[in-house]
Amino acid sequence: METLEAISKRASLKTHISTRDIEDDKVTKILEAARLAPSATNEQPWRFVVIKGKENVENVITGAARMDRKAFDEAPVLILVFVNPKDYVFPDGKTFYLLDIGLATENILLAATDLGLVSHPMASLDGDKLKEMLDIPDEMEFVIATPLGYPLEGSYEEAAQERWRERTRKDLKELVYVNKWGTPL
Amino acid sequence: METLEAISKRASLKTHISTRDIEDDKVTKILEAARLAPSATNEQPWRFVVIKGKENVENVITGAARMDRKAFDEAPVLILVFVNPKDYVFPDGKTFYLLDIGLATENILLAATDLGLVSHPMASLDGDKLKEMLDIPDEMEFVIATPLGYPLEGSYEEAAQERWRERTRKDLKELVYVNKWGTPL
Repeated sequence: METLEAISKRASLKTHISTRDIEDDKVTKILEAARLAPSATNEQPWRFVVIKGKENVENVITGAARMDRKAFDEAPVLILVFVNPKDYVFPDGKTFYLLDIGLATENILLAATDLGLVSHPMASLDGDKLKEMLDIPDEMEFVIATPLGYPLEGSYEEAAQERWRERTRKDLKELVYVNKWGTPL
Repeated sequence: METLEAISKRASLKTHISTRDIEDDKVTKILEAARLAPSATNEQPWRFVVIKGKENVENVITGAARMDRKAFDEAPVLILVFVNPKDYVFPDGKTFYLLDIGLATENILLAATDLGLVSHPMASLDGDKLKEMLDIPDEMEFVIATPLGYPLEGSYEEAAQERWRERTRKDLKELVYVNKWGTPL
C-alpha cells in the first residue's frame, strides 16, 4: 500500500478484530517498522512485549484492563510498548521519551494497516499489573499497547468505512499557520 | 512509495537539503498526513507553524537554534510543532501529549520521505525565542521541528545511502520479548 494511503486509511478499529491467527512474519515486519523509527540521540528507548494467541491476550487484557476490554480481548496478537525512562528526561522535566514512543508506535500502526491488519492504540492498561503478570523489570514503564488482527469483515476497507465516515478531525485551517501564528495556510 | 519502504528509507538528513523550493501542494500533503494521526481521546493537540522561504527559515533558525544550525538554515521549509499542554497531562504527571505529537510527527517524516523530500526531526530550538519571534500564544509549548527540502544529491536514495550504511539500531532480539519479559522473539 502507498504510504499516504496507509496514513489516510489507518483507523482505530477495536471492534473489528477477527480471532484469525496472524502469520509470524507479519508481526515481525511490524516490529521491524517500529525498530526503524528515529529517537532523540538514537536512544531507541522502546521495548516490546508481544502477546501471541488469543488465550494469552485475553489473560493479559482481563488482568490489566481499566476499561473497554471486551472489544479486543480475543485479538490474536497484542503488542505492549514499554520504556525505561531512567536518564531520559529532558532538563525541564518533560518526559520526552514519550515522543520517541509515539514515533515508533505510529510505525506499528501504519505497518499493520499496510499489511491489512487492524489496530487500536490504547493506554488504558494498568502498568503495575502488566509488570507483575509479565515479569517486567521494575525500571520499565508501560506506555501504550495495540491489539492486532485481521478485520472481522472481509477487508480492511469494509472494517474501516464506518469509522472513516465518522472521522472528526480539525480542519487544516485550525491547525496550521504560515510564517507566524495567526496567518492561515 | 510503499509504506514499509518509506518507513525503511526515512532517515535524518540535515546535511543533504537543497535550497530548491518545495511546491505548496507537497507541503499541504505532509500537513494533511499529520492531521490524520490518532491522539488520545481524539484531542489533536498539535498545532503547526510552517516557515516558508529560505530567508524566513534562516531567520528562525538563527534566532532560536541551540546547536547545529548551519546544517539546515537554508532549507526552503521548516515545520514547527507546538502543543497546548493545558488540561492534557495524565494523572501521574506524565506529559502524555508528547506521545500524540510523536504519532503526528512520524506521519510528517514518512509523508516527506514518500514525496522524495528529506527531513530531520530536532528539538534543539529555544521555545521561548520561537514564541517571541512568531507571536505564539503563551499557553503553547514548542515540541519539535523538522526542515523539509529536496535532496542536495540527485535523489533521496543518493542523499541517504551513507546514513543508511551507518545506521545503528538495536537488533529485534534486544527489543522484543514474546508473552513475557525475557523470552526472545
